[in-house]
Amino acid sequence: MDMRAPVKVYMTKKLIGVKPTTSVQEASKIMMEFDVGSLVVVDDDGNVVGFFTKSDVIRRVIVPGLPYDTPVSEIMTKDLITVNSSTPLGEVLKVMAQYRIKHILVEEEGKIVGIFTLSDLLEASRRKLETAISTE
Amino acid sequence: MDMRAPVKVYMTKKLIGVKPTTSVQEASKIMMEFDVGSLVVVDDDGNVVGFFTKSDVIRRVIVPGLPYDTPVSEIMTKDLITVNSSTPLGEVLKVMAQYRIKHILVEEEGKIVGIFTLSDLLEASRRKLETAISTE
Repeated sequence: MDMRAPVKVYMTKKLIGVKPTTSVQEASKIMMEFDVGSLVVVDDDGNVVGFFTKSDVIRRVIVPGLPYDTPVSEIMTKDLITVNSSTPLGEVLKVMAQYRIKHILVEEEGKIVGIFTLSDLLEASRRKLETAISTE
Repeated sequence: MDMRAPVKVYMTKKLIGVKPTTSVQEASKIMMEFDVGSLVVVDDDGNVVGFFTKSDVIRRVIVPGLPYDTPVSEIMTKDLITVNSSTPLGEVLKVMAQYRIKHILVEEEGKIVGIFTLSDLLEASRRKLETAISTE
């Protein structure tokens, strides 16, 4: 992987959205079904109003013992951490390490267009490795 | 990071263990306290008898609606996926991608000695990046 390449090269566009009223249990099913570690929360106008990860579910639902039908609006993060799609990968990794986060939203002109996760980093590392082996 | 270096160079030794009888809620608190995404389950003789991740908690507790006081022995994975500590990093990443896992246990002479996670990959990528910049 090229640390200077823009994050949009490596991000995934598979962003799965749920409504603010979706229950934590229903959202958990969706995470498992689509094999993702985070979901965006989208209002009726299509705006991203929140974001949450599997960690948030554990920290904000299981630890305090909230019921499974708690709406995701009560556990989502509203202050979204985002990077612009043209930000170099190396810079993005720095931000993720600094905040100790495994998922970061990617925006373009103020609109969320994708997400970059540590699974994408794994994929990028592996692709680079395969290229390195095949050119030996 | 050097894809041919043994995984023991990059693994973390911070392995947190809980008992099979520990409740899912208590285990979740421990995960948050130590900022880890997985725990090993250790019996009274000190043997690792299981392993589980935040994903397992969501998939096997929240989705089916089990109570928070379910013991971790009911949701842990018993068939542990491990790599030897001398396995090259590139090979380890291949195994993780193949099984779609974010944490892999590292063994030495049949004993679990550490864990390698995608957070360790982030750290290794960043260290490499910093080295590259400082030698420019």
